[in-house]
Amino acid sequence: MPETDLGPMLSPRSVAVVGASDTPNKVGSSVFRNLTSSGFAGPIYPVNSRSSTVQGRAAYGSLTQIGQPIDLVVICTPAATVPALIRECGELGIRGVVVLTAGFRELGESGRILEAKILEEKSKFPSLRIIGPNCVGIVEPKIRLSASFALGMPAAGSVAFISQSGALCTAILDWALLQGVGFSHFISLGNQLDVGFADLLDYLAEDPETTSAILYIESVVQSRYFMAAAKKFASRKPLIAYKAGRFAQSAKAAASHTGAMAGVDAVYDAAMKRAGIVRVFDMQSLFACAELLTLHPQAIGPRLAIVTNAGGPGVMATDTLLEENGQLAELAPETIKELDAFLPVNWSRANPVDVIGDADAERISKAVTATLADPNVDTVLALLTPQAMTHPTQSARALAAISIPPGKAILASLMGGEQIAEGRRILQQSGIPTFETPEQAIHGLMHLIDHSKRRDSLTTIVDNKPIPLAGTREERRRYVDDLAKPSMKPLSEMGTSARTLTEPESKQLLVRYGIPTTPIRIAPTASEAVQAAEELGFPVVLKILSPQISHKTDVGGVALNLATATQVRESFERMIAQARSMRPEAELLGVTVQPMIAELHGVELILGAKQDPVFGSVIMMGTGGIHAEIYRDRSLELPPIDRSLALRMLQNLRCWPLLQGYRGAKAANIEAVAELITRFAAMIVEQPRILECDLNPLVVSSSQVIVLDARFVIGNSSFSPADPFSHLAIAPEN
Amino acid sequence: MPETDLGPMLSPRSVAVVGASDTPNKVGSSVFRNLTSSGFAGPIYPVNSRSSTVQGRAAYGSLTQIGQPIDLVVICTPAATVPALIRECGELGIRGVVVLTAGFRELGESGRILEAKILEEKSKFPSLRIIGPNCVGIVEPKIRLSASFALGMPAAGSVAFISQSGALCTAILDWALLQGVGFSHFISLGNQLDVGFADLLDYLAEDPETTSAILYIESVVQSRYFMAAAKKFASRKPLIAYKAGRFAQSAKAAASHTGAMAGVDAVYDAAMKRAGIVRVFDMQSLFACAELLTLHPQAIGPRLAIVTNAGGPGVMATDTLLEENGQLAELAPETIKELDAFLPVNWSRANPVDVIGDADAERISKAVTATLADPNVDTVLALLTPQAMTHPTQSARALAAISIPPGKAILASLMGGEQIAEGRRILQQSGIPTFETPEQAIHGLMHLIDHSKRRDSLTTIVDNKPIPLAGTREERRRYVDDLAKPSMKPLSEMGTSARTLTEPESKQLLVRYGIPTTPIRIAPTASEAVQAAEELGFPVVLKILSPQISHKTDVGGVALNLATATQVRESFERMIAQARSMRPEAELLGVTVQPMIAELHGVELILGAKQDPVFGSVIMMGTGGIHAEIYRDRSLELPPIDRSLALRMLQNLRCWPLLQGYRGAKAANIEAVAELITRFAAMIVEQPRILECDLNPLVVSSSQVIVLDARFVIGNSSFSPADPFSHLAIAPEN
Repeated sequence: MPETDLGPMLSPRSVAVVGASDTPNKVGSSVFRNLTSSGFAGPIYPVNSRSSTVQGRAAYGSLTQIGQPIDLVVICTPAATVPALIRECGELGIRGVVVLTAGFRELGESGRILEAKILEEKSKFPSLRIIGPNCVGIVEPKIRLSASFALGMPAAGSVAFISQSGALCTAILDWALLQGVGFSHFISLGNQLDVGFADLLDYLAEDPETTSAILYIESVVQSRYFMAAAKKFASRKPLIAYKAGRFAQSAKAAASHTGAMAGVDAVYDAAMKRAGIVRVFDMQSLFACAELLTLHPQAIGPRLAIVTNAGGPGVMATDTLLEENGQLAELAPETIKELDAFLPVNWSRANPVDVIGDADAERISKAVTATLADPNVDTVLALLTPQAMTHPTQSARALAAISIPPGKAILASLMGGEQIAEGRRILQQSGIPTFETPEQAIHGLMHLIDHSKRRDSLTTIVDNKPIPLAGTREERRRYVDDLAKPSMKPLSEMGTSARTLTEPESKQLLVRYGIPTTPIRIAPTASEAVQAAEELGFPVVLKILSPQISHKTDVGGVALNLATATQVRESFERMIAQARSMRPEAELLGVTVQPMIAELHGVELILGAKQDPVFGSVIMMGTGGIHAEIYRDRSLELPPIDRSLALRMLQNLRCWPLLQGYRGAKAANIEAVAELITRFAAMIVEQPRILECDLNPLVVSSSQVIVLDARFVIGNSSFSPADPFSHLAIAPEN
Repeated sequence: MPETDLGPMLSPRSVAVVGASDTPNKVGSSVFRNLTSSGFAGPIYPVNSRSSTVQGRAAYGSLTQIGQPIDLVVICTPAATVPALIRECGELGIRGVVVLTAGFRELGESGRILEAKILEEKSKFPSLRIIGPNCVGIVEPKIRLSASFALGMPAAGSVAFISQSGALCTAILDWALLQGVGFSHFISLGNQLDVGFADLLDYLAEDPETTSAILYIESVVQSRYFMAAAKKFASRKPLIAYKAGRFAQSAKAAASHTGAMAGVDAVYDAAMKRAGIVRVFDMQSLFACAELLTLHPQAIGPRLAIVTNAGGPGVMATDTLLEENGQLAELAPETIKELDAFLPVNWSRANPVDVIGDADAERISKAVTATLADPNVDTVLALLTPQAMTHPTQSARALAAISIPPGKAILASLMGGEQIAEGRRILQQSGIPTFETPEQAIHGLMHLIDHSKRRDSLTTIVDNKPIPLAGTREERRRYVDDLAKPSMKPLSEMGTSARTLTEPESKQLLVRYGIPTTPIRIAPTASEAVQAAEELGFPVVLKILSPQISHKTDVGGVALNLATATQVRESFERMIAQARSMRPEAELLGVTVQPMIAELHGVELILGAKQDPVFGSVIMMGTGGIHAEIYRDRSLELPPIDRSLALRMLQNLRCWPLLQGYRGAKAANIEAVAELITRFAAMIVEQPRILECDLNPLVVSSSQVIVLDARFVIGNSSFSPADPFSHLAIAPEN
């Protein structure tokens, strides 16, 4: 409980600046000037070991010499001095430190060693928390505290902004000053040596001043804590994030920037969705969300009406709304009638409400008022362009005077340049979120609606009841440990030792978790293959068995529908010969024999798992067979997965209509697939040695589901969630 | 030749305003004030039948009374007066008229009648051209002519802006004034009664003042002329367009706005691609392109280097670049070495070049200069955020002073608010396109690179050599006419009478064009089915034959792989019984019998055509079978289609890897598919009675391609391209 109390740091009553300086352009000069000139009410102590005054104020030789209680210490002295300063802070009982100093891990090994020293000192003082190092600092508008070298004090607002990029902080701060966007907290995280996204989200979820948060993320650490804190926040308030480094190449750029390792983007995407975070993909959307959340912190209803003095922009807004699966409100007949009474005869008589280019301020305001009153309308987007008769400033004043019914909202977009500048200012000051283009307004709106939708699923708890399985958890784990022993080999891309199970081993593993699969026999010789076929019953499938050959069809290593002993014998010989010629290095153990599944006309799916370095196990469901790769039809989730989440994974696939019974085909047994997914997820959670696996294909028909082939890579997981946090309101595994 | 000479209208030496007025807020007052106050050098004649002076100038009672040569007449008197004014203009030999007056087709039938009257008058004077009615007018910055009621005179520039939405004109004009964006021509088209996009593109392709054009399109008319003129323009200069009304719902909004019918968006997309038009999907991109084309009218090379004083924005730019398939330049070792000499040790040593947050103006400018000189770099995007040491204004000055090597370019993005405003202004004035966010810079850049790529394919002429076919064109046409006769029924969704051919009729038609398909027999009874099967050879396929049943599998109307007479007989009985019970209203003509194609393990494709109301015939190639609809894997093209275009259609499919031989499978006979597509396209061009057709599936194996099923709807086409223009430099059918 005291460990995460960030209160003293974010709402300090007194501040000391170690390294406060008179030298212009030094960080210690900028931050001290910002602190003293922004209107902070508490005492501000400059600490400088070489000067008795700083910027005209008496300076202290050290923190200890101050002799007064200090809530927040800002450090901007060289990196080498920081560990000792942290010790001093700890000894003085100080609970909040912001380290602006750069020159740590971003410089390489020497910096890492310094960071370790800081952590070592900090570990002696459990209630001491550190933001940074290598950050731009924090700005707390409500108490007019700028513990930062970034210029400017934004308005006090309700949006918390937390950024892993200092440069973005300075840019956003400058932009916010111009746009009048306010913040509850404005925090540059830097190297996240101690305080990270998770700590802040955990704290801010309960901060009454904060009604939403916007994150700029380059990489996540302590992923379980992050997920739990994000879910906690997002289940109460909108949480928007931009995640940088979407591509391998960009991830590299991010890594070289923060020294942190970035995970694969699709996993980030799945994790953010699961945590209820609304992801935006560009700065414009970040700006739009900030604008919208600042002026309209309440929830916004989805049914949108557009009122415009120009047809073109109305169509543009409609296009964007429909592209984002938004909802164009259907106006009630009474509203149409009401609008008919004062709009020109050639008005659009539908949503978008085109009030015609000669509309004056009064007509626009009356139309918006009438449309907003419609019971089918939640939100009105007013679009104004400078027209012959439309005075943008007067129109803005008229819009600003409208009294908005509870639960409803007005957004606006004024398109143009100087003619609309004053109108835009008037609207923003009156609390109407106003955007440069109709598209930005729609993007912002849809992000917020997206959050409302996700919020609902966050508040339903994943049903985690145990699945009945044969044997004990220990027995099942030991079984995999034993499988791992025979011949673990270094597997470079895993960064660890690993081994691929054979198909028979893989299917045995599935059987332990009650996952239906075809019976399988190993046949080292043609005669044994024939014998196995006779025991299993014709027709059968033969597959090549070799630890080195995982894509069996590539070497002609699969023969289907063999109906006689002769066919089995011939296929065996041909298969071995072809594999030997195409993959001379491969160790050939013979073939496997399995019954041919009659109902191959079901739908083929793939179910797999991998270990992500950031988020741990990830589970993928997709279209099976060759289509998996061709159409990239897949949905990712993090375990645990219950039945309803398994169903959602299936519904998110583009092949979902096929499963429901497409064009007269019978519907697939979706319940059976959902059950299989939950069993698979339980296995993945229970077996950290499973590094990667594919069940591909699994075939689902109207009656059953069965795994036809499976491939497991097992070894020692390098993933460690480093997650000692158990104090959170909701369990981390939800 | 004289018909399209828009010169007198767009570069008039004298202007008359009919309806020039003293009454404030009247269009006739605004436009006359704009004309007289913008610096136009030629005579400006106010015409007002009720007042002897207008705004202090002597007015004329009529155009005739002026008695001087007039190049351009601007009309803003009521709609009813316009037809007679057009006659007067024609009689006076005037060649350019802009009708600002509204109240035509947008008001319904009465307006349409007035428009018809205008066209009737105009038809008597071939050299008279009309822009409008219902438009905002034209602005010609080079001669400082504002024949418009929109406020402001933008800078003279090289971008032509042509818009079908007047509101967008006023908004863009206002924005351009603020941003310093200039135009060669700025034209509001209004109802396009005479002059449309095609006329202007045709003219501006040869206008030396215009180096690029930006269009806002709501709907295209005279599509063949439009396509030809757009190709002509785009093969020389960048052509960017926003097309409004992408969705059914928005299309409705567009229709109610201009009264013009909007076509299906996918067809627009295909047509725009074919014409070399770069399509943008939001206003921000339109703005970004305008900005970029204004300041950088030359081609821009694709290899981009990013120089940034902040890691975060560098990653954001890289993400966007990679998402749009852009090219992140690989810096030469010498450049890295050169940068090493003056950048801090912890600089990124790669592209993006992170010059670190403490960079001053000199370091930034040196880094950009060195990076731009790299032989692997075409373009440098400089990203600046306000940082501790980075003074944005000084940095902008340093960037502006860089001398740019020929063929290379610098773009910039300054992120922030007031701190960067002056720097942004400095860069724009110095000719460096500058954007609010890195994403906008990348979007703009990629649109221009996109154009360069398309331009190459535009200059290669479609190979139109005739395909050897049996019989004469007349015979083939007559064959389809005869097929159309039996029972054409009104088909409401086609807006015409039509009939669906039976499968045997459809396949006969394919045979005439040398398109390989399965032989097919009609069998009204079970015995005849058995006899046909014996003649064709077992195994066979039976399909239900009914004019009313087109989706045969939905009623169990397809039986595959029937190997014996008994199986054929039983399938016949079952099929007829099931069809009778499921579709009691359908007329059952028996079944068709076809040989079972052994090689069903080839790739299934679909090839189809439809008549689009705007662009006429459109040809679609896609993944076949159920996947066609599930994955929407399709590519559209307009005929004619030659071998190389057919190949491009196939390459654009997501299933292209399957055709090339995926996972050890043999490559499909792609040449045979391409040949089939060209024959199909030739048929579609030759047979305007084909309203819709699907060849689905056609199966392609490593050796051959064959159409297994086909469905044709024939009738009287309602499409009329209204295309009497033959004077264009390149043939319209290319």
